Amino acid sequence: MDSSITSIQVTALPGIPLVRQGDDLPQIILSSVTELGLKLESGDVLVVTSKIVSKAEGRLFDLRSIEPGAEAHRLAGETRKDPRIVELVLRESQKISRQSIGVLVVQHRLGFVSANAGIDQSNVDGSDDMVLLLPFDPDSSAEAIRKRLHEQTGADVGVVISDSHGRPFRVGNVGVAIGVAGMPAVLDLRGKTDLFGRELKISIQGYADLVASTANLLTGEADEGRPIVLVRGLRFPAEQGTARDLYRSPEQDLYR
Amino acid sequence: MDSSITSIQVTALPGIPLVRQGDDLPQIILSSVTELGLKLESGDVLVVTSKIVSKAEGRLFDLRSIEPGAEAHRLAGETRKDPRIVELVLRESQKISRQSIGVLVVQHRLGFVSANAGIDQSNVDGSDDMVLLLPFDPDSSAEAIRKRLHEQTGADVGVVISDSHGRPFRVGNVGVAIGVAGMPAVLDLRGKTDLFGRELKISIQGYADLVASTANLLTGEADEGRPIVLVRGLRFPAEQGTARDLYRSPEQDLYR
Repeated sequence: MDSSITSIQVTALPGIPLVRQGDDLPQIILSSVTELGLKLESGDVLVVTSKIVSKAEGRLFDLRSIEPGAEAHRLAGETRKDPRIVELVLRESQKISRQSIGVLVVQHRLGFVSANAGIDQSNVDGSDDMVLLLPFDPDSSAEAIRKRLHEQTGADVGVVISDSHGRPFRVGNVGVAIGVAGMPAVLDLRGKTDLFGRELKISIQGYADLVASTANLLTGEADEGRPIVLVRGLRFPAEQGTARDLYRSPEQDLYR
Repeated sequence: MDSSITSIQVTALPGIPLVRQGDDLPQIILSSVTELGLKLESGDVLVVTSKIVSKAEGRLFDLRSIEPGAEAHRLAGETRKDPRIVELVLRESQKISRQSIGVLVVQHRLGFVSANAGIDQSNVDGSDDMVLLLPFDPDSSAEAIRKRLHEQTGADVGVVISDSHGRPFRVGNVGVAIGVAGMPAVLDLRGKTDLFGRELKISIQGYADLVASTANLLTGEADEGRPIVLVRGLRFPAEQGTARDLYRSPEQDLYR
């Protein structure tokens, strides 16, 4: 990290419409940035909630069309959850991590661990039967947005697709990155010396998660309707990461 | 959360000296804010790294004075760690959570779960034998800073004492709050309706952790020497939380 960074500005983009399948998120971003009287600059980071990426990509599912299998019925009984949702969770997952009444924590097919495979029943078209799955490949979604913004503006921006996750040990959700493009996802600070010159032994920073949590202070989780946040003033090295860099492999995990 | 928040400014305070035992952190904060040409305002949040709070409070220990007990020797053998450090970790902990070669994760006496009980060997007076323990009672440390800043300026500010933690499932450290005063530590968004009016089922935000992670983008972990960050523009309810609100009780934790 460049040691001259002393200030960042974090701004929720105004006037973002309700997003529908097929909507052009880069164009929505550019219109809003223009409305703010700004221009995108290289080094800016755009944090986009997974919810609107999923909506634009048509990841909406009607539970009435889902036929739960035997495992979904068994797990739904054990956790007292809707078997149709459990069926979708299983389809989106590699492995069940923990289960309890009302709780189903899985290793998502993308590699991270989260409750209900990130399937969302809120803010979805006003029907109790409609649910939203996470983007199919959020690293690619981030890269597609980054590329379009570069084509339109010439600016090299970072893009983070964010989600909100619970976690072991600590109460409350925090923002995490599930898609990253145009910037590092983790920063390896090992070998940078501290103020007295001793080598730091272990210091890997979950950089894109920090950025996602910063944006989470502005997006909220309810009716704020501010799903895109511009972070200006970060200085990050020119490494290109992906969200997969943030997922600990099961062999490296003492808690899987 | 107030729905009108659309922008925050995050600034690392300039000119913070190396902190020594007995130093007056509120005075250091006020001098630096003045140097920036600013005045503290109600609603500002100051994020202070636990490292400088520990230093000001004299939480420095000389490993040469530590006599490891039998359990420390056994665990040090199993984890291949310095038995003197293991002894300090045990004194600072309620319970061992996980151990492996080079790794000792504990439930800290304060309630959170972290590697090595947060004991820090970097940036500590240039000696391999000096280590820094976390503040004795960081919620009280935060409250003492908050109170002094209020007395000196009249502003009602929030204070977060931050640490940097690893976590299960995900690679890289993130900022967390281990001391909180003058602001909520968690925000309960349950019952806030979403854009279509359905009640959000579960939405508790790890608010002070989000603020700590935001500041972590500026403090870094190495030689930046920017241990205090001012966050301006947040709008939080007048609830007074403590970092303990962020610690999941073992019975509520599927991963302890």
